[in-house]
Amino acid sequence: MLFEKVTFIGIGLINSSLARVMRRDGLAGHIAACSRTRKTLDKAVELGLADSVTTDPRLAVEGADLVVLGTPLGTYAEIAENMAGGLKPGCIVTDVGSVKECVERDVGPHLPEGVHLVPAHPVAGTENSGPEAGFAELFDGRWCIITPLKKTDPAAVETVCELWRCAGSDIQMMDPVRHDKVLAITSHVPHLIAYTIVGTATELEGDLRDEVIQFSAGGFRDFTRIAASDPTMWRDVFLNNREAVLEMLGRFSEDLVALRRAIRRGEGDTLDEVFTRTREIRRGVIDAKQHIPPKGPNGAKN
Amino acid sequence: MLFEKVTFIGIGLINSSLARVMRRDGLAGHIAACSRTRKTLDKAVELGLADSVTTDPRLAVEGADLVVLGTPLGTYAEIAENMAGGLKPGCIVTDVGSVKECVERDVGPHLPEGVHLVPAHPVAGTENSGPEAGFAELFDGRWCIITPLKKTDPAAVETVCELWRCAGSDIQMMDPVRHDKVLAITSHVPHLIAYTIVGTATELEGDLRDEVIQFSAGGFRDFTRIAASDPTMWRDVFLNNREAVLEMLGRFSEDLVALRRAIRRGEGDTLDEVFTRTREIRRGVIDAKQHIPPKGPNGAKN
Repeated sequence: MLFEKVTFIGIGLINSSLARVMRRDGLAGHIAACSRTRKTLDKAVELGLADSVTTDPRLAVEGADLVVLGTPLGTYAEIAENMAGGLKPGCIVTDVGSVKECVERDVGPHLPEGVHLVPAHPVAGTENSGPEAGFAELFDGRWCIITPLKKTDPAAVETVCELWRCAGSDIQMMDPVRHDKVLAITSHVPHLIAYTIVGTATELEGDLRDEVIQFSAGGFRDFTRIAASDPTMWRDVFLNNREAVLEMLGRFSEDLVALRRAIRRGEGDTLDEVFTRTREIRRGVIDAKQHIPPKGPNGAKN
Repeated sequence: MLFEKVTFIGIGLINSSLARVMRRDGLAGHIAACSRTRKTLDKAVELGLADSVTTDPRLAVEGADLVVLGTPLGTYAEIAENMAGGLKPGCIVTDVGSVKECVERDVGPHLPEGVHLVPAHPVAGTENSGPEAGFAELFDGRWCIITPLKKTDPAAVETVCELWRCAGSDIQMMDPVRHDKVLAITSHVPHLIAYTIVGTATELEGDLRDEVIQFSAGGFRDFTRIAASDPTMWRDVFLNNREAVLEMLGRFSEDLVALRRAIRRGEGDTLDEVFTRTREIRRGVIDAKQHIPPKGPNGAKN
């Protein structure tokens, strides 16, 4: 057992998957879940993921050795402020959010002396949301990026690493600013692009829109999957990683303009050259064993 | 048996998959394969997909009841010209290309009287290329769009429909101009965007590029898969569907600018609204059963 009491603030896809890992491996003596909505908490109990539930963050964290924030980034500051009074000395506060510099900014100032903040980001997910969408294998063979602050107790960092190793993840330590830059291009901009093109399709006239759905197997399908991800979570990612996302989006837009120009002018060689280069990156992804999408809760493809 | 002799011009992913369907269901008495490269033809023989092979299109089509063009669109005109002399009266010439208006333009003028042109587009594929990448189940539950000319013999059209029904496809008749517009948004623009963002990533400094590959499971992975598709085939798609691609790309770019603006200004509501709308399209794709990606040749995920 790694923890006597663990509190999950938010029990959606990621936190509920981590709760399943803890159940499977017996890592926690007691699991408490906190959510704004009663329905989500009822579901968590029904699924056997929580021993106690409450909508009150302060109550939820009382006596916890580990608190895992798994709510949209925009809620962090208020939750940290609300729960601060319930945190016991020595407690580790971690999170699973997709942007990391903002965690220190929003959560750090509220934590009492003796509480350890260890921001983390499991680079894994599906387009599904809610406690029923989670599954214990989600993190298997995926990276978990940990972005500890300089002053953080190494023992607390090691405990969080150990937890993610139990989940099957490989650990990577990283500076939060670097993390946010890397993830802007690997995750945030791809999501924004997918949302954009699916949005473009939703605005087509009725007939054409139906046909877009009908013939989506031509490539569009993959974008609709990405663009089905949780809207609030992603809104907060973009608002909290604005600089890096806008920079990478700028580069992408320049490159797209260049390809548009090549198409307009009928410059086949330019297209050939770019399309050939991109295959190498795919080979890298396959070599790094990151190419297999996760299976859903019942082994079904999402 | 639907045909005594079928000739495949090009024996890559799509044509080799169709050849496998024909072998499985005994649809063809004799299968001839034609390719520019000897190595591809040797592979087709080794895989048992062809009874005879040649690099000469005219020789390949001699005595054929059905000719299936499955090479990059840019080669159609020259191939049509070269093979014309070998076509027997009553032969059906079809293709599997991703743009349809250009087929009548490039192939039509070369065909002798009494030969039937029936352009077709199976909306299915993977990012893999070559005869070894094909599999008979590729077209199962997918749409095949047929864009017959007004003057085409209905019996020839029906024969092509029957072939695709055997492959497990649902048939949709469509005007070629409409086809090219619909596919621009469902397939061509998504591919261009995927190529672009993967291209943007390849130009990042060394360290950052390695990390992009390492953490690709965050969303980027899906783009690298699409951007691993055959470069020549896709170059020719963009060059031959220029108008529709540029129009849809224009709409996409406007929408992306609007989202960039919302991020820069911190307008969460705008993001929320777009991200919520896009979920409906995903639901449509799932209802239309187009959401499951094809399995690879050995049932392995590509």
